Amino acid sequence: MPNYNNMGKNLTKRAEDYSKWYNELVVKADLAENSAVRGCMVIKPYGYAIWEKMQAELDRMFKETGHQNAYFPLFVPKSLFEAEEKNAEGFAKECAVVTHYRLENDPDKPGKLRVDPKAKLEEELVVRPTSEAVIWNTYKNWIQSYRDLPILINQWANVVRWEMRTRLFLRTAEFLWQEGHTAHATKQEALEEAQQMNQVYTDFAQNFMAIPVIQGTKTESERFAGAEQTYCIEALMQDGKALQAGTSHFLGQNFAEAFDVKFMTSEGSQEYVWATSWGVSTRLMGALIMTHSDDQGLVLPPHLAPYQVVIVPIYKSDVQFRDISSVADSVMKSLTARGISVKYDNRTTQRPGAKFAQHELQGVPLRIAIGPKDLENGTVELARRDTLTKETINLEQIASKTEQLISEIQKALYANALDFRDKHMTPADNFEDFKNILESKGGFVLAHWDGTLETEQKIKELTKATIRCIPMNAPNEVGKCVFSGASSKRRVLFAKAY
Amino acid sequence: MPNYNNMGKNLTKRAEDYSKWYNELVVKADLAENSAVRGCMVIKPYGYAIWEKMQAELDRMFKETGHQNAYFPLFVPKSLFEAEEKNAEGFAKECAVVTHYRLENDPDKPGKLRVDPKAKLEEELVVRPTSEAVIWNTYKNWIQSYRDLPILINQWANVVRWEMRTRLFLRTAEFLWQEGHTAHATKQEALEEAQQMNQVYTDFAQNFMAIPVIQGTKTESERFAGAEQTYCIEALMQDGKALQAGTSHFLGQNFAEAFDVKFMTSEGSQEYVWATSWGVSTRLMGALIMTHSDDQGLVLPPHLAPYQVVIVPIYKSDVQFRDISSVADSVMKSLTARGISVKYDNRTTQRPGAKFAQHELQGVPLRIAIGPKDLENGTVELARRDTLTKETINLEQIASKTEQLISEIQKALYANALDFRDKHMTPADNFEDFKNILESKGGFVLAHWDGTLETEQKIKELTKATIRCIPMNAPNEVGKCVFSGASSKRRVLFAKAY
Repeated sequence: MPNYNNMGKNLTKRAEDYSKWYNELVVKADLAENSAVRGCMVIKPYGYAIWEKMQAELDRMFKETGHQNAYFPLFVPKSLFEAEEKNAEGFAKECAVVTHYRLENDPDKPGKLRVDPKAKLEEELVVRPTSEAVIWNTYKNWIQSYRDLPILINQWANVVRWEMRTRLFLRTAEFLWQEGHTAHATKQEALEEAQQMNQVYTDFAQNFMAIPVIQGTKTESERFAGAEQTYCIEALMQDGKALQAGTSHFLGQNFAEAFDVKFMTSEGSQEYVWATSWGVSTRLMGALIMTHSDDQGLVLPPHLAPYQVVIVPIYKSDVQFRDISSVADSVMKSLTARGISVKYDNRTTQRPGAKFAQHELQGVPLRIAIGPKDLENGTVELARRDTLTKETINLEQIASKTEQLISEIQKALYANALDFRDKHMTPADNFEDFKNILESKGGFVLAHWDGTLETEQKIKELTKATIRCIPMNAPNEVGKCVFSGASSKRRVLFAKAY
Repeated sequence: MPNYNNMGKNLTKRAEDYSKWYNELVVKADLAENSAVRGCMVIKPYGYAIWEKMQAELDRMFKETGHQNAYFPLFVPKSLFEAEEKNAEGFAKECAVVTHYRLENDPDKPGKLRVDPKAKLEEELVVRPTSEAVIWNTYKNWIQSYRDLPILINQWANVVRWEMRTRLFLRTAEFLWQEGHTAHATKQEALEEAQQMNQVYTDFAQNFMAIPVIQGTKTESERFAGAEQTYCIEALMQDGKALQAGTSHFLGQNFAEAFDVKFMTSEGSQEYVWATSWGVSTRLMGALIMTHSDDQGLVLPPHLAPYQVVIVPIYKSDVQFRDISSVADSVMKSLTARGISVKYDNRTTQRPGAKFAQHELQGVPLRIAIGPKDLENGTVELARRDTLTKETINLEQIASKTEQLISEIQKALYANALDFRDKHMTPADNFEDFKNILESKGGFVLAHWDGTLETEQKIKELTKATIRCIPMNAPNEVGKCVFSGASSKRRVLFAKAY
């Protein structure tokens, strides 16, 4: 267990170096750390508990929309991997490849092992960077007729993309995610599925994670490799950079054609099946941190907190400790009865100051402190993590007050993030303004774009900003491309991005 | 969707060919199938839903006993993998090895990819067959003092062991499991942890899966590679073969020594940390199938059934369908209110006969059929999957009757399995009897053993039976080894095993 005392104070300030603040916070708040394996992280229990909350809620939402879970192989034979060419091309450069299936004693180094050259695979296996190939090769055998459709499946899994520059949660060689893979009889139904999942991700991000997002579609160059349309949700981090928080892809008939998956329609003809895929990953942990946290450490929306309330006893004598514990016990019971998760931090190895610092750093939404004075007065001290404010309240109010604050904090975090996002969504009508906004203020820039790949790339070269999405609900507005001056029908969303 | 009509009837009978029956059942009941990747399975939604029930219950039990979940890398660098020699030796022959991190276009075959020879890893990565190495290399940084102990962590993950002869669920190259890895300050505490998890597995198998098990310890030759003691639970399958259903290992200080993990004791000295690890896997799906199922298909204990009750409407006209659906709806509500999971099979693409056959094959514990006669009489037909018996009951009794039957079925399955197991646990006092029992009756044979590896191996060569465990609660009994005649202090449990 690290020593949390004064840890918050040692945290780099966001204004000083945002990137350093992030890296330190992830490690100091016990969320994750780098492992001995290049680019792969260890997700520590506290970080994993937050991920479990996300999983549980998403899983519930997926099932509510008719999906079932299943599990497909970790490995993709090279010949399947390369079948859908665009998808293969998109991921080929970052594939971990299994070539052998055995180690043997190294004759030159006693006690050491080496790859057994006799155990070379006839066909190499790619560690899945995404599972369309292996899944569509499977669906081929499941689908004969329109009666077999739709197939609505999700998988919780690990995937590997060999990234050269990695950062905890944001970009790791191995990450955890869910990937939905659905098969449909009509284009319309597949499109609706992709849109529905975009809405599920939106509801999840906003209502559960308290992260406001912009829904939109990707430009062709930013689409998933093999997709005909990519729907996304884009969030804005505190440093003014955007983060893609979830994507759902309309895959057309590309994978059905690559794997020859046809079905008999109700009219008796043979047609290729329509597909979608959609996913969110442990990257959401990064979005969570960079939306809500502050210079004191993590700030967690109550829905995602491993425990929403922590009780810290402050005592000098064993008798005081016993009496406070008895009060704490009754507080815990009344909170638990209202569905509030609470932890009593009765460790005797840490002083109250160290406990306060730890819980602040780890973003526990509410802290209740109970000391000798409180025993006398029938009170407790209640501290909010988001506002860092404290108040003393009567013991009999504790359950109702806590319940009210938990709901308030969840809403306040969303409102603050929305306010920040809205203040950092700036229209630009010429390229000078466009560059100035990106350099000084940051955030999203709403600008007209002529629709060409060339302009998109030029802007990226000159400013590092990319088109995050073509917003779904943007009004039609005739204008001129901020770069080329050519005509445009509506503004798109630019930003520098993670 | 496969055509389930008459599928149960096409199932090979257990008495004919048990192994074929198993393989067919797994596929026909939509639990799992082989994939395009050698030895790797696809777990289909119905099978995965059962696994999810197991996961949820185990996860609850782990957390109740103080464990937290975390996640460690899929890959183990070769130098870490080989650090604990016995463990490395035990798994070296079945390791999938990643040697490259990129594919490139194959210059000789347009549209095809090949491994990029320039992207060879400096150090090969083993796909984890188990995670002791990567975890203890991590714990090294987490543990300085006795205050950091114990560490009680579990991981839900996929692992890969390159098996040459695979069978769905029972032995697959990739499988899903949980692996607990704990670190302790004292030998006693680590031993107690391993024993505690053995008890958790026992309770889970017996109370949740309705599978009776024998608790015991493994002989040295059957221990986990790197363990000083392996506690196990052994179940008996219907064909008289044993199946190891869960193991927990006391690892001594072996991994602490290999990875140099020391801690400062409360007295200030430096000592190596004590370790345990424990796991169960999707292999439990095989145990489930081979404990309860019959010639008609799967039989599921209610605790594990994706839905405990299915309602099938039997109608000729749309009006009948509508009226039956309205009754079904109220039945569903009253069952759901009692915590019973229920599915209304209102598909119009299948006839009742096909639905009956499918639900029988898939082991739904209770089936409610509602037909026109039932509408008239205010009744429904209730059928039990385990006994294949039917009865007509009044509509107002449905909720209480169903609740009662669900509890009854769970108990009956356990009682039947226990009865079978007890009838197939036979003492043998000479080697002729020993061989005869194994060949004719099968099951567990309780026999004296002289404690030597030589005898153990000889018996295995001659009979294919192994020592499944030294039962924990076996009485002390002086006797003579069934093979060598040397003296022995108590009987051990032999069987042929999966």
